[in-house]
Amino acid sequence: MLIKKYKNIPLNNLVNLMNNPVKELIAKKFLKIQAQICETLEKADGKGKFSVDHWEKNIGSGITRVMQDGEKIAKAAVNYSFVSGEITPRMYEITGKKEGTYTATGVSSIIHPVNPFVPIIHMNIRYFELSDGTSWFGGGIDLTPHYIDINEAIEFHTGLKKICDKYHPAFYPDFKKWADDYFFIKHRGEARGVGGIFFDRVKPGDKISMESLIEFTNELGNAYPAVYSKILNQKSHLPYGEKEVKWQNFRRSRYVEFNLVWDLGTKFGIESGGNAESILVSMPPVAEWGYNFQPAENTEEYRTMQLLKQKVDWLKLEKTNKNSKTPAFLT
Amino acid sequence: MLIKKYKNIPLNNLVNLMNNPVKELIAKKFLKIQAQICETLEKADGKGKFSVDHWEKNIGSGITRVMQDGEKIAKAAVNYSFVSGEITPRMYEITGKKEGTYTATGVSSIIHPVNPFVPIIHMNIRYFELSDGTSWFGGGIDLTPHYIDINEAIEFHTGLKKICDKYHPAFYPDFKKWADDYFFIKHRGEARGVGGIFFDRVKPGDKISMESLIEFTNELGNAYPAVYSKILNQKSHLPYGEKEVKWQNFRRSRYVEFNLVWDLGTKFGIESGGNAESILVSMPPVAEWGYNFQPAENTEEYRTMQLLKQKVDWLKLEKTNKNSKTPAFLT
Repeated sequence: MLIKKYKNIPLNNLVNLMNNPVKELIAKKFLKIQAQICETLEKADGKGKFSVDHWEKNIGSGITRVMQDGEKIAKAAVNYSFVSGEITPRMYEITGKKEGTYTATGVSSIIHPVNPFVPIIHMNIRYFELSDGTSWFGGGIDLTPHYIDINEAIEFHTGLKKICDKYHPAFYPDFKKWADDYFFIKHRGEARGVGGIFFDRVKPGDKISMESLIEFTNELGNAYPAVYSKILNQKSHLPYGEKEVKWQNFRRSRYVEFNLVWDLGTKFGIESGGNAESILVSMPPVAEWGYNFQPAENTEEYRTMQLLKQKVDWLKLEKTNKNSKTPAFLT
Repeated sequence: MLIKKYKNIPLNNLVNLMNNPVKELIAKKFLKIQAQICETLEKADGKGKFSVDHWEKNIGSGITRVMQDGEKIAKAAVNYSFVSGEITPRMYEITGKKEGTYTATGVSSIIHPVNPFVPIIHMNIRYFELSDGTSWFGGGIDLTPHYIDINEAIEFHTGLKKICDKYHPAFYPDFKKWADDYFFIKHRGEARGVGGIFFDRVKPGDKISMESLIEFTNELGNAYPAVYSKILNQKSHLPYGEKEVKWQNFRRSRYVEFNLVWDLGTKFGIESGGNAESILVSMPPVAEWGYNFQPAENTEEYRTMQLLKQKVDWLKLEKTNKNSKTPAFLT
């Protein structure tokens, strides 16, 4: 087996491949974010603990941390990795650079909750550097509710906009649109969830400095477990039954479809020979497929589907009454 | 909704796009095979019934027939479709022909059983024709046991060889190898199951006539439900518990991974804008992902994994004792 268990993570060993101070700084900050996310989520869950698996393959190494069967969290994964290799065909497409090598370091995380009324959340921050010195950041946070709660979506987007606005006025509108386009399940004609922000190939330069980009990705990494802990605390006690679990499992299968068919991170991981268990730790604990299942009109499931079939500018929506899950424009 | 229900399938309407006698003959034979498969499987199951959904999209039309929640069959799908369009980039790669149109007609089927000791089975036969008259057949049958039963695998391959040998001595050895290569889950480094036969781009010509190819694909289509009915009857009564269901669901998730990441039929369907519900009806009813799950040594689950990690020439294996599931070369 490729995966070995370590009780104490040899932090310094892990980043010694980084032979320049900026890369080393980013790698260390990302590692710290991974630890921070796990600590915060363990506190929020109250029962579940994260495992620590250190893996090494030809392409690089990483730390996969997984919580399974928590009190509120069904499965959470927080991956840290740094990998390197020859420039891939896709990087050539993006950068126009055919020859040379890349190094990439990043944190990606996903949380599948126990309670169907709690959304799935996903976060990723990553830094790429080519051998000629070209570098860029990518990342994002997005929310995939099984049942869309308008107020929650508005609050989520408001928080993201607040962070983005600190760094560049174009970040939120650009990255919100990018998330809408990216997290779209083309073969189903529906959005994966209520979106969030997504960005790629953001280069330090005129518009924003390297320092600010490091800070921006760090702020996203830190906001992520804080935002989710709040939702977990607000909603994990909500009562639900078999019907809601079935719906949750149907929506989880859409998550599976998106990740395996469309997600570029998953594709990159699989094609570059990454560690399958770490890449596919994003999969839900369970998923169900029901042939041609259609929720009945005027149900919560139906309302969620209606919202997933259009692009919504959440910040333009009035906050609906706290007790109502029906958005103003649907009533 | 794209899908409409028809009680009586307008057979003749469906094949009237076929404006030559060979295409029409094949389309009609394939339609008959679909009906035959459903009839045989309903008899074998004893309780479950197939729904009949007729779909139409820009690309063409088809009939999707699905059984859910049968007595022995958890989910079975039998798709018939005929589609047409501009030559795709992949067809260009294969044929070297850049311009023109194609028509394709085929039957594909998959069965997910209730009992974990019964294997998943998959069959496909398809006929392609380009506007310049070039034509070819593709297809295959393969078995994906949750628990590998050596005797069953040997019997299955013996049966396939017998059919293949009637048409060409190279068919079984070539198509068996093709299946081993094709049904390999690269990112997991394991076979999907015990294989079977797989073929593509088999053109009527010197080696085999159009008539024989029509007969060959028909024989495969007819053998499929017969073989599976026998297995269902032999094994559906075997006792199992939660542990076996959990393992079944883990193996089902590998099936999901293969189909969504590697299967060319699924890719073709999704990229060509096919009907998502019909393409993804191959998904199991339920799937589970367990992070880094390893079966303990000397268990049936462990033995199955050992066999999936190597290419096995089933016909070279001695039939093991009926009461033992351990193959000679593993003891």
